[in-house]
Amino acid sequence: MPGNSFGQLLRYTSWGESHGPAIGCVVDGVPPKLPLTEADIQHWLDRRRPGTSRFTSQRREPDTVRILSGVFEGVTTGAPISLQIENVDQRSRDYSDIKDRFRPGHADFAYDAKYGVRDYRGGGRASARETAMRVAAGAIARKVLQAGIGKSLTVRGAMVRMGPHEIDRGRWDWKVVEKNPFWCPDAVSAKDWEGKLDEARKAGSSLGAVVEVVATGVPPGLGEPVYDKLDAALAHALMGINAVKGVEIGDGFAGSALPGEEAHDEMRMKGGKVTFLSNRAGGTLGGISTGQDIVARIAVKPTSSLLIPRKGVTTDGKEVDVVTKGRHDPCVGIRAVPVAEAMMALVLADHWLRFKAQCG
Amino acid sequence: MPGNSFGQLLRYTSWGESHGPAIGCVVDGVPPKLPLTEADIQHWLDRRRPGTSRFTSQRREPDTVRILSGVFEGVTTGAPISLQIENVDQRSRDYSDIKDRFRPGHADFAYDAKYGVRDYRGGGRASARETAMRVAAGAIARKVLQAGIGKSLTVRGAMVRMGPHEIDRGRWDWKVVEKNPFWCPDAVSAKDWEGKLDEARKAGSSLGAVVEVVATGVPPGLGEPVYDKLDAALAHALMGINAVKGVEIGDGFAGSALPGEEAHDEMRMKGGKVTFLSNRAGGTLGGISTGQDIVARIAVKPTSSLLIPRKGVTTDGKEVDVVTKGRHDPCVGIRAVPVAEAMMALVLADHWLRFKAQCG
Amino acid sequence: MPGNSFGQLLRYTSWGESHGPAIGCVVDGVPPKLPLTEADIQHWLDRRRPGTSRFTSQRREPDTVRILSGVFEGVTTGAPISLQIENVDQRSRDYSDIKDRFRPGHADFAYDAKYGVRDYRGGGRASARETAMRVAAGAIARKVLQAGIGKSLTVRGAMVRMGPHEIDRGRWDWKVVEKNPFWCPDAVSAKDWEGKLDEARKAGSSLGAVVEVVATGVPPGLGEPVYDKLDAALAHALMGINAVKGVEIGDGFAGSALPGEEAHDEMRMKGGKVTFLSNRAGGTLGGISTGQDIVARIAVKPTSSLLIPRKGVTTDGKEVDVVTKGRHDPCVGIRAVPVAEAMMALVLADHWLRFKAQCG
Amino acid sequence: MPGNSFGQLLRYTSWGESHGPAIGCVVDGVPPKLPLTEADIQHWLDRRRPGTSRFTSQRREPDTVRILSGVFEGVTTGAPISLQIENVDQRSRDYSDIKDRFRPGHADFAYDAKYGVRDYRGGGRASARETAMRVAAGAIARKVLQAGIGKSLTVRGAMVRMGPHEIDRGRWDWKVVEKNPFWCPDAVSAKDWEGKLDEARKAGSSLGAVVEVVATGVPPGLGEPVYDKLDAALAHALMGINAVKGVEIGDGFAGSALPGEEAHDEMRMKGGKVTFLSNRAGGTLGGISTGQDIVARIAVKPTSSLLIPRKGVTTDGKEVDVVTKGRHDPCVGIRAVPVAEAMMALVLADHWLRFKAQCG
Repeated sequence: MPGNSFGQLLRYTSWGESHGPAIGCVVDGVPPKLPLTEADIQHWLDRRRPGTSRFTSQRREPDTVRILSGVFEGVTTGAPISLQIENVDQRSRDYSDIKDRFRPGHADFAYDAKYGVRDYRGGGRASARETAMRVAAGAIARKVLQAGIGKSLTVRGAMVRMGPHEIDRGRWDWKVVEKNPFWCPDAVSAKDWEGKLDEARKAGSSLGAVVEVVATGVPPGLGEPVYDKLDAALAHALMGINAVKGVEIGDGFAGSALPGEEAHDEMRMKGGKVTFLSNRAGGTLGGISTGQDIVARIAVKPTSSLLIPRKGVTTDGKEVDVVTKGRHDPCVGIRAVPVAEAMMALVLADHWLRFKAQCG
Repeated sequence: MPGNSFGQLLRYTSWGESHGPAIGCVVDGVPPKLPLTEADIQHWLDRRRPGTSRFTSQRREPDTVRILSGVFEGVTTGAPISLQIENVDQRSRDYSDIKDRFRPGHADFAYDAKYGVRDYRGGGRASARETAMRVAAGAIARKVLQAGIGKSLTVRGAMVRMGPHEIDRGRWDWKVVEKNPFWCPDAVSAKDWEGKLDEARKAGSSLGAVVEVVATGVPPGLGEPVYDKLDAALAHALMGINAVKGVEIGDGFAGSALPGEEAHDEMRMKGGKVTFLSNRAGGTLGGISTGQDIVARIAVKPTSSLLIPRKGVTTDGKEVDVVTKGRHDPCVGIRAVPVAEAMMALVLADHWLRFKAQCG
Repeated sequence: MPGNSFGQLLRYTSWGESHGPAIGCVVDGVPPKLPLTEADIQHWLDRRRPGTSRFTSQRREPDTVRILSGVFEGVTTGAPISLQIENVDQRSRDYSDIKDRFRPGHADFAYDAKYGVRDYRGGGRASARETAMRVAAGAIARKVLQAGIGKSLTVRGAMVRMGPHEIDRGRWDWKVVEKNPFWCPDAVSAKDWEGKLDEARKAGSSLGAVVEVVATGVPPGLGEPVYDKLDAALAHALMGINAVKGVEIGDGFAGSALPGEEAHDEMRMKGGKVTFLSNRAGGTLGGISTGQDIVARIAVKPTSSLLIPRKGVTTDGKEVDVVTKGRHDPCVGIRAVPVAEAMMALVLADHWLRFKAQCG
Repeated sequence: MPGNSFGQLLRYTSWGESHGPAIGCVVDGVPPKLPLTEADIQHWLDRRRPGTSRFTSQRREPDTVRILSGVFEGVTTGAPISLQIENVDQRSRDYSDIKDRFRPGHADFAYDAKYGVRDYRGGGRASARETAMRVAAGAIARKVLQAGIGKSLTVRGAMVRMGPHEIDRGRWDWKVVEKNPFWCPDAVSAKDWEGKLDEARKAGSSLGAVVEVVATGVPPGLGEPVYDKLDAALAHALMGINAVKGVEIGDGFAGSALPGEEAHDEMRMKGGKVTFLSNRAGGTLGGISTGQDIVARIAVKPTSSLLIPRKGVTTDGKEVDVVTKGRHDPCVGIRAVPVAEAMMALVLADHWLRFKAQCG
């Protein structure tokens, strides 16, 4: 299958370019009779929307989603759900100067090498604009999970490092996450990051990030052995987000430095149930969920669009200095938070349906 | 599709349990007329085989592969290739004491939660024994790549950290890799690690590892945009290896801490061709190969089987101390090297065929 | 994968209900740099459009297609192509009386049994309106085939039986096909069918049909052995068209009544090339194309919507007589012709890409 | 995916050539805890086995199946089940004369055109020998269906026409089917066919057949709308059987000749349930099962291997008369019966799991 679809049983396909007339996706395999409205999806899109603080792109997109199929009289029918968002604030003129050049860190060169043609306007298909559809599809995945597993299931993300600046995990508070423009769970860091990001932005630079996503209330048994382990499915989903270059489950790289006797989660009985004394594995054993929280972290590289000149080349082979004006996120990690949440929700919902098929 | 298959166009399906009569796989989609013998595959299997040094499991498996179909008069026919390895040294008695207990860090609990039944002998389907088939399939993937792309294509792995002990990358020498039991590219570290691993082994402990895999000679254009980026496909493949809990492409987590102007690979012209001045991205842009080396790193957790007692529970809810005798790798990272190479080869071969289909 | 997608490498997903705001599809995997305009697609849609003669539904749909993505400056970019058609003439009031009843021959009962909910307006997702997207996607498939294989490739359909009335194959003339409202290749039968269908329509009855589709210029080698034989892929594609209940390749059922010595296509050399002395197999051997014409036939059942009362039941279990007024095709076989052509083009294009991947 | 796999959630992949060391398959996605023994599978294989009467190939194959994985202590574990049958009676010498020639009606020419290489021994991968694995996998599908749906579910086949000789459907008796070498449900025809087939065999000719397969006890709701209708899935499965060139569901081609008011199944209430007054649709509406019997028919072309000389060519372009000695079935339709049953069971089991995933 070509690369614009995701999932097996909850299967969605996205389409659209940054500066085309619209972007959209089709979500297929949704169980019938789930209540679903445009507002249910809009809620999550609004969290990701550009232009909401000075720390994200100033592109003004209302990102108003329309449901074009698959929902009738307020509930899903089991037919494919088509979602669509018009591109309103396209301002193509911002991008005309990139038509003939390969920008460092951008997909320009690779797309040209692969396809021999490329929609250069705003990054075309490679633009992070596409991630709006992931958030929209993720909203449906949440509905599937809550209908199937229960309201106790949550999927939440937070930015735990901006550039080199780590949070203090001792101050972690999920309530803080919604109250700052960074989705930062540590109020002190959030305050501090404002100055740090302003500084980078004014210097024409950008910062990377580490984002952590956590799902609670996931029942044991999700994940397929061997090649589609839950870890592997999450890695696939999360590494596919624009600018992501690393994925960890549980203790990840740090865990690989521990001696064996400290690296695994011991078990005791509690109220007649198996409980784990720690969660170093991030909620899976042998690639299958254990009932613990699913914990993943991603590394997001700094935004490639910079005011600081970088060495690039033109499509006809001239060396140039590239300065990208336009409107860009100084830290794309911020908007990666709702996207990463959505991808985790999509993976869990897909694996929930797979579980039901074989073991339900 | 269930989880025991990998790849789309070069598609393989593995089967078998640690202590069943045999393990095997079927590799489908192989182009016709490629010369292929059992020796071609055996070469790579021998590198992964247990029992070759005191640092890997003492299970004695000749791991002799048989080709049962898809090859005729020394060449592939385009029909599915069935590979099979008999399990010779099964020694089931070693494992009878784990029948009724969930061992910390092992898949026991999760498999039981998912399936309600489990082949407990030697880890059953969750055993690392299955990875022999990945190496075998990977040998075929190498043939596909070399026939399609050329002999200059290589996929090589090395262990770059054992437990907390990093190599000195300044001493990196690929020739050293084949000359020590750790696939370590730094001769000094390799020497040092012997003592470190002996110590851990004697203490009944184990060590984790970081493994790096590098492909050279990969043409630009491999990788599907959006959801099947080459990065995402590699993350899927590598995170699916037993005990792996982290994957990085290029600079990965470290790269996300850099300021934007240092994080991306600048370009110049050289001999009329676009060249990159660094390889922080690990060989991809927008998820598509650029012609640079593909570089990935994985975090492998320490072996779960330990002589040091750890807290586990029995299947009927009693708390127990678990000590795993049997024969185990004190550092599973060692055998992860040829497996990770194989998975990268499989990803590249699959994406090569996908490239040919759409853009060839 | 859920059931609203078709194809593996040329993969399309359709969405939309008969009386929703729009219908659409996403076509993924299209090779880059193919010239493609909305007019290219509209050409084929116009052939299928309802309301063009008294022999098809009087629903007035302009069926104007829009390309929303995947095409830039007149050529395909390799990104997914989103196509959309607004539903203009919905007239929902025609269908309000079917809300609470299961009509014989319609999907009402089965959808209700499966999903417990159903968009009853005009058949919802089960409506033949969906087939407009197959024709649109088929137009892209033709482009793929012509770019890859050559302009000599054609895929054409004709109605060879209406109800019980067979054509005289001795009078077959492809030029006649475009000149009558039945896509009938026999001018005499076409004339005769007018009266026959008027009669059925006036009686409130309907007629079935047999449609034949023929592809010329298909190179040898298309089709996957064993489970995805070209025959099997065509059967899948054609049996999935609304109201189709039978598929034959080549001589089909009639061929199975012949003695072995008459049933197979003998071969001779002609101009240094293997040629076949007949085409009883319909262009395949062992499920793989031979270079001969690909010939398939489908049986289309008569329209289920009738003015003659038929016995149905209501959703709450009352027995009723069902009379369907609305606007319907007295012979859905007519509109099945362009749809069947499109499906054959989609199968061939998909298998062409699959051929390129493994054997190209 | 390449063409040697079948099904989505109950997914199996077959491998092996007619004269290789063995044939086999891997069945993945099987629910856990189903009792399964080799005898359960052998039972169905024995029905298909060659050499059981003078009307099937005299190749002597015990076709003894081994389960190599996925079953532990008598029950399925959810892991892939590997099945294998050794090729015992290979007698390669019978086939050496076909090495250099393309036989009419056989796959030789097409395989050569596609792959440029071919295992010519006994038809290689294109041999009907492969269908043994379909029967074996089908035996597992039956277990899945009976565990999920109930013991009342049956899938049975019968030969309803041999060459041009139709049965009298008024004499249909399922008990007769097991008592004659043709799986004929009409005792009078069965008797008559003996002479007819002896005659054909002695003349060096062969006969085709029509086989009917019927599933009872199938619940409503199976089948995916639009592209994976149950009809389409059955057509795909059945048309993929060697030598099959036509598939009908329900009334099929004959039904398309009826006027609308006779062609659809009317409904009444009976004991508070919707019942159908006929089964012209063959058990589906809109591609989804209705609870009625699923009825499919296939056209099997006459065996291609004949003693009567037919015109063929050699691989180096010489015209030759081809006479195929070897050991062949004079009517491959006979052995198509258990194979068609197996394919229907596989389709139903796969769609049962798909139903559970989305609507369960």
